[in-house]
Amino acid sequence: MKAIGSTARVEQIPTHIAGFDALAVGGLPLHRTALVMGTAGSGKTVFAAQFLVEGVRQSNEPGVFVTLEESPQDIRHNMLSLGWDIVAMEADAQWAFVDGSASLGDEDVLIGEYDLGGLLSRIQGAVARIGAKRVVVDAIGALAIRMGNVGRIRTELFRISRALNNMLVTSIMTSEQSSDYGEVGRSEAEEFVVDSVIVLRNALEVELRRRTLEILKMRGEPHRRGEFPFVITNGKGVEVVPLSAIALEHKSSLVR
Amino acid sequence: MKAIGSTARVEQIPTHIAGFDALAVGGLPLHRTALVMGTAGSGKTVFAAQFLVEGVRQSNEPGVFVTLEESPQDIRHNMLSLGWDIVAMEADAQWAFVDGSASLGDEDVLIGEYDLGGLLSRIQGAVARIGAKRVVVDAIGALAIRMGNVGRIRTELFRISRALNNMLVTSIMTSEQSSDYGEVGRSEAEEFVVDSVIVLRNALEVELRRRTLEILKMRGEPHRRGEFPFVITNGKGVEVVPLSAIALEHKSSLVR
Amino acid sequence: MKAIGSTARVEQIPTHIAGFDALAVGGLPLHRTALVMGTAGSGKTVFAAQFLVEGVRQSNEPGVFVTLEESPQDIRHNMLSLGWDIVAMEADAQWAFVDGSASLGDEDVLIGEYDLGGLLSRIQGAVARIGAKRVVVDAIGALAIRMGNVGRIRTELFRISRALNNMLVTSIMTSEQSSDYGEVGRSEAEEFVVDSVIVLRNALEVELRRRTLEILKMRGEPHRRGEFPFVITNGKGVEVVPLSAIALEHKSSLVR
Amino acid sequence: MKAIGSTARVEQIPTHIAGFDALAVGGLPLHRTALVMGTAGSGKTVFAAQFLVEGVRQSNEPGVFVTLEESPQDIRHNMLSLGWDIVAMEADAQWAFVDGSASLGDEDVLIGEYDLGGLLSRIQGAVARIGAKRVVVDAIGALAIRMGNVGRIRTELFRISRALNNMLVTSIMTSEQSSDYGEVGRSEAEEFVVDSVIVLRNALEVELRRRTLEILKMRGEPHRRGEFPFVITNGKGVEVVPLSAIALEHKSSLVR
Amino acid sequence: MKAIGSTARVEQIPTHIAGFDALAVGGLPLHRTALVMGTAGSGKTVFAAQFLVEGVRQSNEPGVFVTLEESPQDIRHNMLSLGWDIVAMEADAQWAFVDGSASLGDEDVLIGEYDLGGLLSRIQGAVARIGAKRVVVDAIGALAIRMGNVGRIRTELFRISRALNNMLVTSIMTSEQSSDYGEVGRSEAEEFVVDSVIVLRNALEVELRRRTLEILKMRGEPHRRGEFPFVITNGKGVEVVPLSAIALEHKSSLVR
Amino acid sequence: MKAIGSTARVEQIPTHIAGFDALAVGGLPLHRTALVMGTAGSGKTVFAAQFLVEGVRQSNEPGVFVTLEESPQDIRHNMLSLGWDIVAMEADAQWAFVDGSASLGDEDVLIGEYDLGGLLSRIQGAVARIGAKRVVVDAIGALAIRMGNVGRIRTELFRISRALNNMLVTSIMTSEQSSDYGEVGRSEAEEFVVDSVIVLRNALEVELRRRTLEILKMRGEPHRRGEFPFVITNGKGVEVVPLSAIALEHKSSLVR
Ligand SMILES: Nc1ncnc2c1ncn2[C@@H]1O[C@H](COP(=O)(O)OP(=O)(O)OP(=O)(O)O)[C@@H](O)[C@H]1O
Ligand SMILES: Nc1ncnc2c1ncn2[C@@H]1O[C@H](COP(=O)(O)OP(=O)(O)OP(=O)(O)O)[C@@H](O)[C@H]1O
Ligand SMILES: Nc1ncnc2c1ncn2[C@@H]1O[C@H](COP(=O)(O)OP(=O)(O)OP(=O)(O)O)[C@@H](O)[C@H]1O
Ligand SMILES: Nc1ncnc2c1ncn2[C@@H]1O[C@H](COP(=O)(O)OP(=O)(O)OP(=O)(O)O)[C@@H](O)[C@H]1O
Ligand SMILES: Nc1ncnc2c1ncn2[C@@H]1O[C@H](COP(=O)(O)OP(=O)(O)OP(=O)(O)O)[C@@H](O)[C@H]1O
Ligand SMILES: Nc1ncnc2c1ncn2[C@@H]1O[C@H](COP(=O)(O)OP(=O)(O)OP(=O)(O)O)[C@@H](O)[C@H]1O
Ligand SMILES: [Mg+2]
Ligand SMILES: [Mg+2]
Ligand SMILES: [Mg+2]
Ligand SMILES: [Mg+2]
Ligand SMILES: [Mg+2]
Ligand SMILES: [Mg+2]
Repeated sequence: MKAIGSTARVEQIPTHIAGFDALAVGGLPLHRTALVMGTAGSGKTVFAAQFLVEGVRQSNEPGVFVTLEESPQDIRHNMLSLGWDIVAMEADAQWAFVDGSASLGDEDVLIGEYDLGGLLSRIQGAVARIGAKRVVVDAIGALAIRMGNVGRIRTELFRISRALNNMLVTSIMTSEQSSDYGEVGRSEAEEFVVDSVIVLRNALEVELRRRTLEILKMRGEPHRRGEFPFVITNGKGVEVVPLSAIALEHKSSLVR
Repeated sequence: MKAIGSTARVEQIPTHIAGFDALAVGGLPLHRTALVMGTAGSGKTVFAAQFLVEGVRQSNEPGVFVTLEESPQDIRHNMLSLGWDIVAMEADAQWAFVDGSASLGDEDVLIGEYDLGGLLSRIQGAVARIGAKRVVVDAIGALAIRMGNVGRIRTELFRISRALNNMLVTSIMTSEQSSDYGEVGRSEAEEFVVDSVIVLRNALEVELRRRTLEILKMRGEPHRRGEFPFVITNGKGVEVVPLSAIALEHKSSLVR
Repeated sequence: MKAIGSTARVEQIPTHIAGFDALAVGGLPLHRTALVMGTAGSGKTVFAAQFLVEGVRQSNEPGVFVTLEESPQDIRHNMLSLGWDIVAMEADAQWAFVDGSASLGDEDVLIGEYDLGGLLSRIQGAVARIGAKRVVVDAIGALAIRMGNVGRIRTELFRISRALNNMLVTSIMTSEQSSDYGEVGRSEAEEFVVDSVIVLRNALEVELRRRTLEILKMRGEPHRRGEFPFVITNGKGVEVVPLSAIALEHKSSLVR
Repeated sequence: MKAIGSTARVEQIPTHIAGFDALAVGGLPLHRTALVMGTAGSGKTVFAAQFLVEGVRQSNEPGVFVTLEESPQDIRHNMLSLGWDIVAMEADAQWAFVDGSASLGDEDVLIGEYDLGGLLSRIQGAVARIGAKRVVVDAIGALAIRMGNVGRIRTELFRISRALNNMLVTSIMTSEQSSDYGEVGRSEAEEFVVDSVIVLRNALEVELRRRTLEILKMRGEPHRRGEFPFVITNGKGVEVVPLSAIALEHKSSLVR
Repeated sequence: MKAIGSTARVEQIPTHIAGFDALAVGGLPLHRTALVMGTAGSGKTVFAAQFLVEGVRQSNEPGVFVTLEESPQDIRHNMLSLGWDIVAMEADAQWAFVDGSASLGDEDVLIGEYDLGGLLSRIQGAVARIGAKRVVVDAIGALAIRMGNVGRIRTELFRISRALNNMLVTSIMTSEQSSDYGEVGRSEAEEFVVDSVIVLRNALEVELRRRTLEILKMRGEPHRRGEFPFVITNGKGVEVVPLSAIALEHKSSLVR
Repeated sequence: MKAIGSTARVEQIPTHIAGFDALAVGGLPLHRTALVMGTAGSGKTVFAAQFLVEGVRQSNEPGVFVTLEESPQDIRHNMLSLGWDIVAMEADAQWAFVDGSASLGDEDVLIGEYDLGGLLSRIQGAVARIGAKRVVVDAIGALAIRMGNVGRIRTELFRISRALNNMLVTSIMTSEQSSDYGEVGRSEAEEFVVDSVIVLRNALEVELRRRTLEILKMRGEPHRRGEFPFVITNGKGVEVVPLSAIALEHKSSLVR
């Protein structure tokens, strides 16, 4: 059994994502890992990148973006349309990529042989190099597929999450879901491994798509509960629709 | 066949969780194991920890918290926001952690090789050391994943449950569910192994989440049946919403 | 081909469970095995034990209770709250337990190696010793899990059922279901093996639980069909809600 | 390729089951095999036995009843409550049992080793002995479980069906279904193998059970389509509810 | 890469099935294979046989009927009730059977060993012998079961379809479905392999069955879309219910 | 880690498919791969071919059509009915086929042995030969079936997609779905691998089929969201129904 450590109140850091910190009653828990889940195109990558971008811009905290399937170049391109000049941030050593996608194109990387330890070392190296305070891992689905069984995935996610927490960074991992309102990530049970779960939905309602964000859980923290609409716009990224305090009171309430 | 033992009425101990003992018509059966089931963030850990906290505070009964995935340090942090100073209780030998999570981070613990006997001995040791009357095991999902087949899980849960009962403690085990209203824990059938089942739900109803608690079964005991709303609040933890006796009569009734 | 035997009308014995014999138009078929199916906490064990208790009390027929997972001591305790003093009945040689649960706690009983023949001999022995006329086997789920494949379970259930019938006792076996209104016991198909099937339900209807009992089939017998509400109360156990003959006529009707 | 045979119109024989022959516009196709499908207690065995009983009583055609799980003695008992004295018919060599259930109680019959050829010879023998014109095989579920894979079951059912047709008898096979309105026998696809399919339903509709009969298909024959209510009563067995021609016209119509 | 061939407009041949050619805006694509899917008794065999019968009667085109489970004799019998004298057509060398069912009754044909090449040669032989222009393969379910895995079935269907097209005949293959409105043939994905898909439904709507026909796809062809009611009647077979052009305009419209 | 490249705004190329480019706010992202998903007959092949046809006609960009199951000759025939003379374009070296279907008819191509590298080289060769700017791969379902496990498919699709992007062409891959509104391509998770996903639906609504097109995601791009009706007509192919700006405003709105 470990020695009993200090017992300070769980601290939170603001994400500075418009409207989100109000829902989270402060932001994300410090030095913890939050999971952002959603279907294809629900906004996981935009949300996660924005967490880093706003960290650089508003909190002066460098960030590391670990990409497991898309290339860093794709991410750079895609984010530019949102007005985020990642290349400039990289040049300022405020942003670093860890390219975990490379091996995916290689024919000789077999399932079950993924070198997680190597990836963690590279993340550790990038964090140390730029003094990162925030890390994003996007997206764990590609990782899960390279491992054979469910039990191992849960164990590995737990291990990644612990390792990130030990680097004293606050992190976001993203995870792909096959439907907006089905069971939450059930086959992998990844929602049980982390301290916080944020669900992004892009649901079809009679021919129209509607985006909502929900904080499903945040261990040790009060937070607003239920679904809140958000938009993704040119130049701004994710904005949770601002509701007046009264409207909020009507639609939802502080966690109980 | 064993000798025929004594036949005293099943005794119950109060949990002192606000509102719960009224539903359970007394509390949890003495020296038995209750299962608390729920989805991610439904409040399983809060409920279970509160069972120990109130045991210390109101019944002067020391408690042992067995954590199978989160670290004791995480639990300490998370519970502080609810106003529970676990470190102080540990210092008074009123609370002890058994850290079953340690091995989860190790790469070399293979599925199917979990040493359940060792865990039970460590629990027994902690119980003896502080004279514990209450034990929590949070959460068995991580355990289940480390074992290969369903039959073995049911057998092992039964074994844990028996071992705890033989230590003459009253226990709570928590179990993860993938949906709020799906079939109850069907793949593992753990709800058949224990004497009492409590279900915590955190269901999405048109954009809002609503928490309810239900005593699904309590062998040999009358109890209120059906779902009752509850809240989790800063400084108080779980509170089952107090309904006047009349309202209760209207909404539900004593077990029949 | 066997010799053609006698062809007397199928006899029935009263269960003396309040309200049930009226639904069954006489009771359970003599020297046959009925299956009682239900979810966790639906009342299977109470119903089955009550069949033995009332046999002792009202028909002076000794009974054997075979428990496959709970210990006899647990059953004794749980039934006491219902006002049934099983210890006294055991002392009078009116009740005997066969403890099929013992081996469940043992680490060395492997799946697929369960000694069904041994269990049947022990049941036979207990039946002979107290001159039992009624037998309960509670619950076959634990048994099923110890066998590998579905085909074998069906075959074994059939074998148990035949063996019990050959001991010239009237029996109840209980079986766990994962949902109240899902397909009836489909994976094991146990409902096809026995002559009578009784389903106990404990369904959630907008926050409230409601208990109902249904005789799903009774080969060679007329019986009332459809669901009938019942309660479990302190000191009385299962009581099928008494409806006046007129109300019954309205809600249901004799089997057609 | 076989020689081209005679091309007479498909003949039908009356079942004499009350109301059924009107739905079937004549009865069952001569020297063919019809499949009667239904859930537990839906009336498969009663319907099939009645086909033989009425054959003896009204057409003076002897019948062979092949039972694959229940013992002949059970069938005799169960049918007596319906007023059918099978023992008397056996004595008159109007009825013969083939007991395919015997081996089921034997521990040493392994799955996959069922001797179908032997069973067919015994059926052939019984048919020859009493000059049977009608055969019932009740129920194929037990058979299916003794064979390992779906492909083999389809092949074997086809083989049984052909063998029966070649004995120049008109036959009914019964088959167990797990739900009343689910997909029709999908895993085994037995409904594609036979020429006629009759579905018996015993559906729960708001606490009440309701029996209906439907001719799902009858190759080469016109027949009434849709569900028709029926009852099972003491002394009469299955009776399809008699509707006036006008009412029938309203509810259904001749096959189109 | 093959040489670039001729590029004439896709030709169609009339089926002469009443009402169908209007929906198909001409008929079936020449020298292509259409798939007719449906549940048991939905009318697949009648539709397919009628395609050959009308070919003989109205276009003077001989046809080959490949039967994979029923015997030719069964088909002859069943079709007679519809007024089609197949024996006469066989005598005129206008119709030929290829009996692919024979081996099904043989115990020694193992799954996975079906000799598809041999079957194709026999079809080729029959086509050559009578100068057939139309071929029916009824039904591929029996074939699929004799092959082990899904991938292989798709490949084989494709191979059969190509082989038939190369014989310069226009063909129909029938395929069994387990439900009327479930996913279209999903496990085998046979609907992707062929150029045209016709779905026959026999859906239960509040106790009544209702037959509809739909052209789900027809590559390179305009066709009416949506479901159209049809009947099967004595002496006429399938008739798609004739709707006036105006009514059609209202209910559906030319493919867009 | 790769060197940091240029960071120009994501460029788009017009598809010139009527109405589509307005939804996509410009067209498809340059040198990226879009996935077009849909059920059988939903219009995937027409849409993909039209992308090449309009590229030739309106942008003077040659195109390569890779067909994995249908023969080039079939495609040529089918497209002719839409007014597209592919043979003429082939003669002008504006269009080239890569025939990946050939091996499908061969009995000796085993599952799991598909030579993806060889296919990519042939595509590369065709692209180089005619200076293609657009590529279509139709359809990946046949490919997926030739590979054993899901993990490998995701990896291979990613590899094809990368290879196409590296050839500096803009591509469309089509993928078969088993239902219109079920989970999006869940078993293969192909929707997560690509940058853009377009879903074509052909849904049955009370007897009628209705075609809609939806841009499910487009990484790094604003686009209209939700379903838009389209038609396929003789001589024009796919046309997304033109809505006035006002109607559009009402039904949908620019991506947010
Ligand atoms: N500049 C932009 N303006 C408006 N909307 C945009 C812009 N860029 C992206 N989007 C929207 O965001 C969506 C992509 O979001 P994102 O890539 O974060 O999704 P994701 O959840 O990561 O998906 P995937 O699982 O496929 O990676 C696009 O489909 C588009 O609808
Ligand atoms: N101080 C607090 N004030 C208000 N609500 C809180 C507080 N702490 C926790 N909560 C609520 O309790 C939830 C966490 O509950 P808990 O950790 O007991 O759930 P759990 O069922 O154990 O979940 P998991 O399966 O993920 O472990 C949080 O998501 C939050 O909604
Ligand atoms: N003394 C009592 N008074 C009132 N209700 C009681 C009493 N004893 C038990 N019950 C009710 O009966 C339920 C237990 O029934 P029982 O143990 O027969 O269920 P079961 O179907 O056997 O469940 P399991 O599958 O878990 O063994 C309890 O959950 C409780 O609701
Ligand atoms: N004498 C009778 N009077 C009235 N109803 C009867 C009588 N005998 C049987 N029944 C009814 O018929 C049902 C049994 O029918 P049967 O045994 O034919 O069903 P089954 O479909 O063969 O069931 P299983 O699959 O379990 O063999 C009984 O459950 C009962 O409801
Ligand atoms: N002469 C007839 N008059 C009226 N209806 C008939 C006639 N012959 C057959 N039918 C109807 O056609 C149905 C059989 O159609 P068919 O054999 O073509 O179905 P199928 O789809 O091939 O079924 P399966 O998959 O079982 O082979 C019968 O169930 C009956 O309803
Ligand atoms: N000339 C035409 N005029 C009108 N509609 C046509 C024409 N050609 C094709 N169609 C329509 O387009 C459909 C075929 O579209 P297409 O082949 O693109 O579908 P697909 O999604 O590729 O299907 P599959 O998965 O089976 O390949 C036809 O079923 C028909 O409804
Ligand atoms: Mg992403
Ligand atoms: Mg927890
Ligand atoms: Mg019980
Ligand atoms: Mg039966
Ligand atoms: Mg057929
Ligand atoms: Mg296509």
